[in-house]
Amino acid sequence: MKIEVFFSLSQIDDLFLRDKNVVVIDVLRASSTVIAALSNGAREIIPVNTIESAVKVSGNLFGDVVLRGGERNGRIIEGFNLGNSPAEYTADAVKGKSIIFSTTNGAPAMWKARYAKNLLVAGFVNVTAVVERIKELKEDVYILCAGKQTQFCIEDAVCAGMVTKLLIDDEETETEFNDSAVAAVALFKSFSKNLLKMAKSCDHGKYLAEIGCAKDLELCTTIDLYDVVPELSGNVIKLRKKTEPPGAPHVPISIDTTGGKGE
Amino acid sequence: MKIEVFFSLSQIDDLFLRDKNVVVIDVLRASSTVIAALSNGAREIIPVNTIESAVKVSGNLFGDVVLRGGERNGRIIEGFNLGNSPAEYTADAVKGKSIIFSTTNGAPAMWKARYAKNLLVAGFVNVTAVVERIKELKEDVYILCAGKQTQFCIEDAVCAGMVTKLLIDDEETETEFNDSAVAAVALFKSFSKNLLKMAKSCDHGKYLAEIGCAKDLELCTTIDLYDVVPELSGNVIKLRKKTEPPGAPHVPISIDTTGGKGE
Repeated sequence: MKIEVFFSLSQIDDLFLRDKNVVVIDVLRASSTVIAALSNGAREIIPVNTIESAVKVSGNLFGDVVLRGGERNGRIIEGFNLGNSPAEYTADAVKGKSIIFSTTNGAPAMWKARYAKNLLVAGFVNVTAVVERIKELKEDVYILCAGKQTQFCIEDAVCAGMVTKLLIDDEETETEFNDSAVAAVALFKSFSKNLLKMAKSCDHGKYLAEIGCAKDLELCTTIDLYDVVPELSGNVIKLRKKTEPPGAPHVPISIDTTGGKGE
Repeated sequence: MKIEVFFSLSQIDDLFLRDKNVVVIDVLRASSTVIAALSNGAREIIPVNTIESAVKVSGNLFGDVVLRGGERNGRIIEGFNLGNSPAEYTADAVKGKSIIFSTTNGAPAMWKARYAKNLLVAGFVNVTAVVERIKELKEDVYILCAGKQTQFCIEDAVCAGMVTKLLIDDEETETEFNDSAVAAVALFKSFSKNLLKMAKSCDHGKYLAEIGCAKDLELCTTIDLYDVVPELSGNVIKLRKKTEPPGAPHVPISIDTTGGKGE
C-alpha cells in the first residue's frame, strides 16, 4: 500500500485525485464537525465551495429538513443555522437533517476530492475507524490536509502522521510513502504526547481561542471520540451502510439544486 | 524577528516576497551547487526559468566568460557546460565565469524570490554563514524551500528547520514563527542525527542515487563545508562584498541579453 500525504490543496490538481482513495483532514474544525454531525444522526453533509452555492442548494427546503452550516473567519455565516463547531452539531440540532456545509478550507478540500473513488473524512476524533476502513480498502491512499488556504497547518499534518503511523504499525499492511508521509509521521511522534498543547499553540488554534472557540480545541483533539467514517456517496457525505461494498456505485442525491424552481 | 517557512513554491505568489528577506533552500542540489560555484571563484550565477532563456541570455559570450549550468530530470542539459552537481563546479571549471543556471526547482525558487529585499541562498553546506547573515539583517525572514515542483521535500524542510533552530538558539534574537517553521524545527530534530541517511531515503535522494549521483548526497549534507552566502544583487547571485551594507542598491548586470545583437 502506497501512502501519500499532501499538506495543502495547492499541491495538487482536482483530477489528480480522480478514482483514488482519498482521506480529507481538517482537524480545526471542518472534519471534526462533519464527523460529529453524522455521528449524531445528521442524514448527510453536502460540502459546497461558496456561500452562494449553499444558499442556492438549500433552496426552499431551507430550515425544514435542510440546514446551512459553516464559517468564514471562524465565525458562523449570516443566515446560517450552524457555525463550524462540533459542539453545535448535537442530535437535537441535526438528527435527520441534510446540512449544506461551507467552510474556508475543509469544505473546499472535500470538494477538491469529489472525483475520488472513495473519499473518507478523518480527524483525531475518528482516527481508528478511518484506519480500519483504509485497511479494508487494501489499496493506495492519498491523505489530503486542508491546511489554511495554500498554507501548511501543523494539526492536519500531525493527524495525517497518526493515520500513517497506525497503518505502518499494522503488521499485515506493507507500506511505502512519499516525503510528506515520512515527515507527517515524524511530526506525529514529536507532538503526540500532548495534542491539545499542539492545538493551542498552532496558528489556527491560537486564532480560534482568540475568537472564543478554545473549547473546540479540546473536542477536536480527543482521539476516537466517534466510531464512524463519513464517506462521499454521490455528491453528499454520509455514513456508509455496513452492507455497502467498497467503491459501490454512487447514489444520486435527492436535494433540489435549482432553488425549488424545478429546472 | 518573525520566521516563516514555506514548503513549496505553490504556497506563495512572487509578489508576496517583495521587499522581504528571503532564504532560498534547494539542498538537492541547486543551492549546494550555487554555494560551491561561488565559493570556488565563479563571478556570478544568473538563475533563469527556462532552457530557452539560458541560451538567449548567454548569447555570443557563451563558452568564453559565460557558461551554462543546470539540469532536467537530474541530468545535464544538452549544449550546457555543467550539470547540477556541486562536484563539477571546481575552481578550474568556474573561476571568473558567469554561469547561466537553469534547474527544475532551485533556479525557479531563486527566480520566484527576485523581488526580495535580500535573497540569500542556503543549504547545509553554508548554514552557519547564512544564520550569521540573517542575524546581521535583524529583520523578519522568509525561508522558501524549493521542494519538487509543487511538492514538499523533506531535505529542504529539515534544512529550513536547522536555520530556524540556530536562530532560536541565539539568545540575542527573539523569534516568532508560523506552523511550518515549528514543523521544520521538529523535523530537523528528528533527522539531524544522520542527515546523510535522511538524504539517501528521501524521494529525490533515491532518484539521484539511481542516476549515479549518490556522491552528491554526501556533499550536499556536509554542514558548513563553505563559509559564504550567495546573495541576489540586481538579477545575478554573487558573494556580497564585506563592505556592502545590507539592502545596498542593485548593480546593473553586464550580460548581453539580446543574443549579441546589441538591441
